[in-house]
Amino acid sequence: MQVIHMNKGEGETIGISMVDAAITNILWEIQPTSMGVADLGCSSGPNSLTVISQIIHVVDTVSHQMGRPVPELRVFLNDLLDNDFNSVFQSLPQLYKQLSNDCSGINEGNCYICGSPGSFYGRLFPSQSLHFVHSSSSLHWLSQVPSGLEATHLNKEKLYISKSSPASVVEAYQQQFQKDFSLFLRSRAHEMVVKGRMVLSFLGRRSPDPSVDEACYHWELLARALMSLALDGLVEKESIDSFNAPYYAPSQEEVEHEVEKEGSFVIHSVEAFEIAWDDGDSSGLKESSGTRVAKTIRAVVELMIENHFHLHAETMDVLFRRYAKIVDDCFSETRLHYTNLLIYLVKKG
Amino acid sequence: MQVIHMNKGEGETIGISMVDAAITNILWEIQPTSMGVADLGCSSGPNSLTVISQIIHVVDTVSHQMGRPVPELRVFLNDLLDNDFNSVFQSLPQLYKQLSNDCSGINEGNCYICGSPGSFYGRLFPSQSLHFVHSSSSLHWLSQVPSGLEATHLNKEKLYISKSSPASVVEAYQQQFQKDFSLFLRSRAHEMVVKGRMVLSFLGRRSPDPSVDEACYHWELLARALMSLALDGLVEKESIDSFNAPYYAPSQEEVEHEVEKEGSFVIHSVEAFEIAWDDGDSSGLKESSGTRVAKTIRAVVELMIENHFHLHAETMDVLFRRYAKIVDDCFSETRLHYTNLLIYLVKKG
Repeated sequence: MQVIHMNKGEGETIGISMVDAAITNILWEIQPTSMGVADLGCSSGPNSLTVISQIIHVVDTVSHQMGRPVPELRVFLNDLLDNDFNSVFQSLPQLYKQLSNDCSGINEGNCYICGSPGSFYGRLFPSQSLHFVHSSSSLHWLSQVPSGLEATHLNKEKLYISKSSPASVVEAYQQQFQKDFSLFLRSRAHEMVVKGRMVLSFLGRRSPDPSVDEACYHWELLARALMSLALDGLVEKESIDSFNAPYYAPSQEEVEHEVEKEGSFVIHSVEAFEIAWDDGDSSGLKESSGTRVAKTIRAVVELMIENHFHLHAETMDVLFRRYAKIVDDCFSETRLHYTNLLIYLVKKG
Repeated sequence: MQVIHMNKGEGETIGISMVDAAITNILWEIQPTSMGVADLGCSSGPNSLTVISQIIHVVDTVSHQMGRPVPELRVFLNDLLDNDFNSVFQSLPQLYKQLSNDCSGINEGNCYICGSPGSFYGRLFPSQSLHFVHSSSSLHWLSQVPSGLEATHLNKEKLYISKSSPASVVEAYQQQFQKDFSLFLRSRAHEMVVKGRMVLSFLGRRSPDPSVDEACYHWELLARALMSLALDGLVEKESIDSFNAPYYAPSQEEVEHEVEKEGSFVIHSVEAFEIAWDDGDSSGLKESSGTRVAKTIRAVVELMIENHFHLHAETMDVLFRRYAKIVDDCFSETRLHYTNLLIYLVKKG
């Protein structure tokens, strides 16, 4: 097993080449005439079809190199029911146009893209129908707030595992992750063919300690911002005590342990790379790093915060202005980063 | 071949039992372990999952009668790219809940529903992947305005075939229908397994004459309403001359001819039934028949009218008020109805 440490740019390049290698291996080893591909957590932004486009290009190129016809491609775009599939579908004509220009082997009669709404913590696809599964930036979201934490106020003043969290909080998070990730693997094991490949990337950590900064610090600072609102009477402290993010950043060892325990997949490789909170280079930008980080985090967590705290729009603005300020203060002292885990699995025979 | 004439209520009942019969025959004759089902033109209203729900119930019931496990169900909901798939997907939890209550053989691990956007005048699904295809109220829409009509002003003051239309207009419509319907059949022939079934219902006519009222009259009256706007200077007469609806109501004979010419399907049965314009019983309703007809037609054609005529919202209101008045005047003299064709096809070996 390889474990490589690298920065974001390198990480993205490795991610792309890992997908390319997986697709190439599937085509050579399995030689499918009909190939099932799923992107789990496709989301709906401008990049929601990027990896699918990349995969189809590789299938076209490698098939030509092999001197074989391009297999029929069955592509499934998955995300939760409330994802904006309409906007994803609106981008399909552009993708088909690009494919018909770039890929001589792809045409109307051999590439079928559809939307499969639902949670990947459970079955989504027919048995043994998939050759390749991809998921990016999705598996760090748990299926629910860890069991037992919703009713208790064990994790006072915090939103996620913190250095001050009692051991029972850490355990509840670990158990929820184990349950979810194991169900994810078991579900995919049913859906994938033997020798099928899976490339997963999500937030994790390199340290065995679940309360290490790289895994927790963005929640830690958001908790600080919320606590400052509580001091001003803008949020109930109780509702901070009762909030726990349905999120978990596992270590490589935890992920490997679950894969081995579930038993359907062999780990081909695991890699870890850093992503700067503020996306690296901030020179020439008008906004502070903190403001940009706050925007990114707000886009991801606003609905969750809204559903729990029922903040007025103005209070929400105040929250993320304070969050930006706190992040800026931290940036003046240290460079903040996430750790991304990139995992390549092969379905056993 | 059966040809039965009936009214709407009877027609709907026959439509449901035709679907039931088709599904039952597939289960007995093919005994699939994995069954592909597609609803083409599923739309996005409250009824968009009705037929799928019905189909799944029949699969469950018949499988139990046969003493066999329920096959894995692969369900594809199709409509054009601009359909509101988000709202269709939002209804899925309700459907799954209902199925888990009613159908002992249907569970999370054997029923997969996805959305397949695109035109059914072309390939939508992998080869030989479907056992049953359903389409309701969609195939009377052509893939485009009949070739040649867009550039010419042959069909003056009319929106569709009319008693005053020149023969070349009628021919252009017939040829577009033949081209489209034949492509539809050829595409489905690739996608369906041998002995697979297809139940299609769409607007048509019983008369061989394409300008018969039951096929044309709703466009005829809409043309009258537009011409009255033109007299008042609210619409350019030229833009009425250049508008032609991408619609065709074929006769049974035309449909049968295309099926035989394409050659992949055997016609099991064809039935025709009437649908009252105002949905029959108007007693106890506040609105006039014309107003209700105008609302229905507006919902269907407004976007098309908008795209061609670029009417202000107020002018659009005026158009459909005048249309309602014209329809009311007609209702005082005669009962207006559409003809629906209901066709059951079996894929040849």
